[in-house]
Amino acid sequence: MPGSSFQPAGELAGVPQIGVGVIGYGFMGRAHSLGYKRQIDAYWPPKVLPRLLAICGRNGERVRAAAQRWGYEGYYTDWRELIADPAVRIVDNCTQPFLHAEPSLAALAAGKHVLCEKPLAPTLAEARQMRDAARQSGKVHMTGLNYRFVPAIRLAYEIVQSGALGELQLFRASYLQEFRRDPTMPALSGSPEGRGRGVVGNLGAHAIDLAYHLVGDIARVSGVVVNHIARRPAAAGASELIPEKEEDTAHGLLEFANGVTGFVEATQVATGRKNQLVLEINGSRGSLRFDLERLNELQVYLLDEQDPLKMGFRDIVVTEGAHPLLKHWWPRGHVLAWENTFVGELNHLLTCVAEGRQAGPEGASFEDGYKAALVGEALRVSSREGHRVDVQSLE
Amino acid sequence: MPGSSFQPAGELAGVPQIGVGVIGYGFMGRAHSLGYKRQIDAYWPPKVLPRLLAICGRNGERVRAAAQRWGYEGYYTDWRELIADPAVRIVDNCTQPFLHAEPSLAALAAGKHVLCEKPLAPTLAEARQMRDAARQSGKVHMTGLNYRFVPAIRLAYEIVQSGALGELQLFRASYLQEFRRDPTMPALSGSPEGRGRGVVGNLGAHAIDLAYHLVGDIARVSGVVVNHIARRPAAAGASELIPEKEEDTAHGLLEFANGVTGFVEATQVATGRKNQLVLEINGSRGSLRFDLERLNELQVYLLDEQDPLKMGFRDIVVTEGAHPLLKHWWPRGHVLAWENTFVGELNHLLTCVAEGRQAGPEGASFEDGYKAALVGEALRVSSREGHRVDVQSLE
Amino acid sequence: MPGSSFQPAGELAGVPQIGVGVIGYGFMGRAHSLGYKRQIDAYWPPKVLPRLLAICGRNGERVRAAAQRWGYEGYYTDWRELIADPAVRIVDNCTQPFLHAEPSLAALAAGKHVLCEKPLAPTLAEARQMRDAARQSGKVHMTGLNYRFVPAIRLAYEIVQSGALGELQLFRASYLQEFRRDPTMPALSGSPEGRGRGVVGNLGAHAIDLAYHLVGDIARVSGVVVNHIARRPAAAGASELIPEKEEDTAHGLLEFANGVTGFVEATQVATGRKNQLVLEINGSRGSLRFDLERLNELQVYLLDEQDPLKMGFRDIVVTEGAHPLLKHWWPRGHVLAWENTFVGELNHLLTCVAEGRQAGPEGASFEDGYKAALVGEALRVSSREGHRVDVQSLE
Amino acid sequence: MPGSSFQPAGELAGVPQIGVGVIGYGFMGRAHSLGYKRQIDAYWPPKVLPRLLAICGRNGERVRAAAQRWGYEGYYTDWRELIADPAVRIVDNCTQPFLHAEPSLAALAAGKHVLCEKPLAPTLAEARQMRDAARQSGKVHMTGLNYRFVPAIRLAYEIVQSGALGELQLFRASYLQEFRRDPTMPALSGSPEGRGRGVVGNLGAHAIDLAYHLVGDIARVSGVVVNHIARRPAAAGASELIPEKEEDTAHGLLEFANGVTGFVEATQVATGRKNQLVLEINGSRGSLRFDLERLNELQVYLLDEQDPLKMGFRDIVVTEGAHPLLKHWWPRGHVLAWENTFVGELNHLLTCVAEGRQAGPEGASFEDGYKAALVGEALRVSSREGHRVDVQSLE
Repeated sequence: MPGSSFQPAGELAGVPQIGVGVIGYGFMGRAHSLGYKRQIDAYWPPKVLPRLLAICGRNGERVRAAAQRWGYEGYYTDWRELIADPAVRIVDNCTQPFLHAEPSLAALAAGKHVLCEKPLAPTLAEARQMRDAARQSGKVHMTGLNYRFVPAIRLAYEIVQSGALGELQLFRASYLQEFRRDPTMPALSGSPEGRGRGVVGNLGAHAIDLAYHLVGDIARVSGVVVNHIARRPAAAGASELIPEKEEDTAHGLLEFANGVTGFVEATQVATGRKNQLVLEINGSRGSLRFDLERLNELQVYLLDEQDPLKMGFRDIVVTEGAHPLLKHWWPRGHVLAWENTFVGELNHLLTCVAEGRQAGPEGASFEDGYKAALVGEALRVSSREGHRVDVQSLE
Repeated sequence: MPGSSFQPAGELAGVPQIGVGVIGYGFMGRAHSLGYKRQIDAYWPPKVLPRLLAICGRNGERVRAAAQRWGYEGYYTDWRELIADPAVRIVDNCTQPFLHAEPSLAALAAGKHVLCEKPLAPTLAEARQMRDAARQSGKVHMTGLNYRFVPAIRLAYEIVQSGALGELQLFRASYLQEFRRDPTMPALSGSPEGRGRGVVGNLGAHAIDLAYHLVGDIARVSGVVVNHIARRPAAAGASELIPEKEEDTAHGLLEFANGVTGFVEATQVATGRKNQLVLEINGSRGSLRFDLERLNELQVYLLDEQDPLKMGFRDIVVTEGAHPLLKHWWPRGHVLAWENTFVGELNHLLTCVAEGRQAGPEGASFEDGYKAALVGEALRVSSREGHRVDVQSLE
Repeated sequence: MPGSSFQPAGELAGVPQIGVGVIGYGFMGRAHSLGYKRQIDAYWPPKVLPRLLAICGRNGERVRAAAQRWGYEGYYTDWRELIADPAVRIVDNCTQPFLHAEPSLAALAAGKHVLCEKPLAPTLAEARQMRDAARQSGKVHMTGLNYRFVPAIRLAYEIVQSGALGELQLFRASYLQEFRRDPTMPALSGSPEGRGRGVVGNLGAHAIDLAYHLVGDIARVSGVVVNHIARRPAAAGASELIPEKEEDTAHGLLEFANGVTGFVEATQVATGRKNQLVLEINGSRGSLRFDLERLNELQVYLLDEQDPLKMGFRDIVVTEGAHPLLKHWWPRGHVLAWENTFVGELNHLLTCVAEGRQAGPEGASFEDGYKAALVGEALRVSSREGHRVDVQSLE
Repeated sequence: MPGSSFQPAGELAGVPQIGVGVIGYGFMGRAHSLGYKRQIDAYWPPKVLPRLLAICGRNGERVRAAAQRWGYEGYYTDWRELIADPAVRIVDNCTQPFLHAEPSLAALAAGKHVLCEKPLAPTLAEARQMRDAARQSGKVHMTGLNYRFVPAIRLAYEIVQSGALGELQLFRASYLQEFRRDPTMPALSGSPEGRGRGVVGNLGAHAIDLAYHLVGDIARVSGVVVNHIARRPAAAGASELIPEKEEDTAHGLLEFANGVTGFVEATQVATGRKNQLVLEINGSRGSLRFDLERLNELQVYLLDEQDPLKMGFRDIVVTEGAHPLLKHWWPRGHVLAWENTFVGELNHLLTCVAEGRQAGPEGASFEDGYKAALVGEALRVSSREGHRVDVQSLE
């Protein structure tokens, strides 16, 4: 029997809740589920909270386990029903790319707010259709470009916006993984589910989005998009090798509308690189550099006429309460994880829904997801055709 | 009305649950609460789960909010009642150091398993009493030395244990913060609650514990323990300055029983250092280095007769599924946070309770917390008396 | 009067000496002169030494000072006479690019061995003429691509050659300076002497050469070559702004004959970057990374099936006596300078002359200098015409 | 026959020359010889130049080779005669420590200016005698503590002097090498020439000197001085092991007269550390950090009330012409070597002699060399006797 001072906790009252349904329970389904669950961990007192209504997957047993694990009230095995559920106000599409378009379009058509993981779709045509539908919907729409919610990236954004770097001139971003380095890993093109999982959409979308977000519109690109491992097993353990169509490497030269020049690169066969997205921006009065493997740090160089002998790239440990997105976490120097970015991203989504405003410029909308797809396609076209591509020409 | 395929999630069945009561809802109370809540995030299927019975604090309103926020069934305002609650099997003491001894002793006396935050107590006498009680209790006892559960530290431990570094020779550890750099911050000694919050117990305990954990018993120390900011306001905003008795800086020379020599250092007035615990071990055949601000990395040097031209400190990004403590988290390169260490630490506690075994050597017991207190006291004695101190002499 | 044990040093006997004449006493003239002078500092006992016959410049007073400072026997004010001097066996052309072709061709025609600073010439046509003449001469010819003589680069070369990285797949190189960041710096195009001093030849040549040297032949490129500071003062202090024709920035996508893909970049307007040439190569079994600002270090990643948990980029401090090019310098860890690369480069030149062999593959010949020019021109053509350029098509 | 425009270089006229005699032609003899030779490389027009009169060594053949190699007019085999040579105004003692005292004292007695390599002597008594003699001599006296002439260290000195770090509070320095890691290396104590070559004088002197130079007088120390490799072969290749008396490791706690606390450490058995002297100073308003393996860089943290979100350790690439000691070297980013420090050090010596002033505070005098010896001895005494040592008590 509990002691006499024991009091039941009672319900957390008076906080608006927004019904959420998540489609998919894999890598991203897990990351988003934890991002929702952790809203209350980070934000207090909470202004808005998710109500985790349902998660959806085709395998009933597995999706039930996911629902139990992550605290959903229940689960669906048919995403159409999840979308049709009137209590679901936000549909969060965490499926593989081949399933991004149809449910997202259906959700928009059903009047839901939609978060769709990147890439928006395996093809530009689908991505465009999604963008158009989102535009017309009047609903909140976001693409899962969560690196905008890395505190150091947000600080970088604020520094650029403040003009502290002067006129921007140069940009470079390399997103390097070794995830598909092993040639015995089966071909993505071996199954329908692999469609759209090539590196352009998988990693490239992040790098391209940060280029847009931090620097501005990309006007022209030249690209080289290849498979360094050109043939892979048709399936896990298969001895038959088939051509891999989902590219493992993409390089692009970028010319921005504002005159900045630079490059972007994404690969999943860079031996030794675990998850390294390095980007650098040089402006007439300063520069900045970021590395995702050290995501709590931002390197910034600022011209200082008063004290020219003490200039150098500063390694800012972006963990102060006064730094962006950090008010609600831990004391300085207590570093955050990759997974924490989803807490910020989903808080933004919930806040936008609660306040009736769109996700930009801080968050990535379907417009932004579409832009990433557009540039990705431009890289492929340029690579295939051997000439520079005007990005708008693909619109 | 939900769709026809909707199924309620149902209860997660068949997982043993262990009743937990947490005392304190501040910085550590929050970190532990999230660590318990996140067991299921990391470990799946779970072998054991905490049942979050109650949290305890003196302020009823605040502790209720904490209970609601972190999902406790209820709360207490009297820690004696929490301890007396028969459903509580683990008492987790997250109070300030001045309240570490009495509740921990009471909990042990009541037959509870106990986790107490570091430092075990403000005085060595209290710490010894706690250690002795824990020894006799037969219960699981842990000290909140969570850095043992940083994956890179666990990897370091395994490397040392494997003999890959050869015979150990040198050790150094500096734990640097700037948290108390500002001289207008009030004196810890200004209130009873500040007792035991000086740097020796606050930061030094971590560094000393890692010395024991990774290298072995410390035989002799010489110390310099000081306050670089010798006088501080009596209270926040007060103009009166009083002497600060809780030290802000401690340096020590260490002589280990196995012949290793080195030093340990902790300070909270190192301008610019956010939360930097750097440690290095040199052995006859290799070395390793760790930095808490980059807690996903471990630097390792290994002699290689075959390939002497390619030797260098390797920067291991400790995020592979095969790395220790990482099986249950994210794909490689998706870095973890400081807060994730508590998930590992509390999983260890729950597992030990479930399996009926003690916390060592992976986890820090009250024996280990006591050793940290012993060396801390030895540093103070050496500093005061001006001579080397045999650590055992203070037993 | 000196003591009785005093003995005059006497002449260093029995070492073959090769007569050297250097044209130009500016930045490179100084670097080369010290490189010759320091042969004896590094190599002992010397197998061959330079005889510093003459240095040449148009301003008699200044060139005499240079001759006195650097220990030349005399000086010329007409490079034609220096070339005609029968004692001069090596003509070292350290002039500005606009003066590279004519004296180098004349020297080859006169039967001299020739070292010409990079870029070989301001135009591809001139560079080709120089390459052809060198080919036919039978003399030793080198281009001043001294980074091949950074010990860490030589180690990188040896690692690549050994096959330790497996099949090469990816390459990236960024050469970033801020040297021309200041828009009040006068236009290079404002004077004839500025011709060929744009970033493609100035910095790009180094990066392109290392791509060839370490990876292999470049088959196709796409380029963006621009001036971020499009107009500059016509002369120092002038208020009139003229268009700058010598580009400050060049970006290129590279497709190598062996299938490697990647990029190269060079700019002199990257605020905060002093002299940072970062390059990275990824192969199927390993990777390496180099940064010129830390030229004593090489980062290498090697797959290790035996010990997969300890893999990481190793930071090799390339200063061991057993490391390439280091036998003759200092004990390990006593780091070398940028200027030391010239000692190695000129030793190679002198040795090739003494032994009657060509400069490759360790040193950069006129063939190599021409290749750098060819790719540079291909970048410009691609940038202008907007399509990918087959490098051989410009031959 | 040379061309008609050929002019002989002629003599460099009008530059005062100071006769130099160097004793010893080993590691330091070489470093100093090149430092003298390179005066003209760095400083132009030169205000003063060394006249390299003679080098001295016991082995006539070898010392003649050294004289030829480094451009001395002649050589001695008896250091007494070198000192007696009236043309020699500066005696530069580059012998092993066991030979530091006698020739240095003789040179001072003979009215010479003296540079003696560190450590000043194997024993404190000898060092004191040298310090006293130097004081009384009225001549310029320097100890070979060349790291004061690393540009980044000089910049650190200027930053500290400027008050930019506020009140200094903490100091730490670790000088780590692996030079004596191999236990088959013969004992230094096996031969008389090894006397004084233990790590306290060899490396510790540098670290202690920088503590004095940058922070101030050291009042009290506690020390642990040991041999991790306690027994070594009596001679190279010998199977007999003898106790090594020249310590391989020293650790010390430091209490400075101005209240700064910290530690110093030196070891030659730190596996993997090539030549890493890391030091850090924390003050009330800023901090700095230096690493000798990256000697062209200085890390500086400065509080900035205006812009608190952009504070971080800046990595200053100390290679600008406006940075201290760099006016005469290369353009920014063209990094210098360890050996360049001797050029600066010897220029300081020559300038002091020419201008009739003492070496401090920029250069290390015999006073400074003595202080390093004093603290080194205090560390040993503390280690042996087990108590804190008041440095002045050993005076």
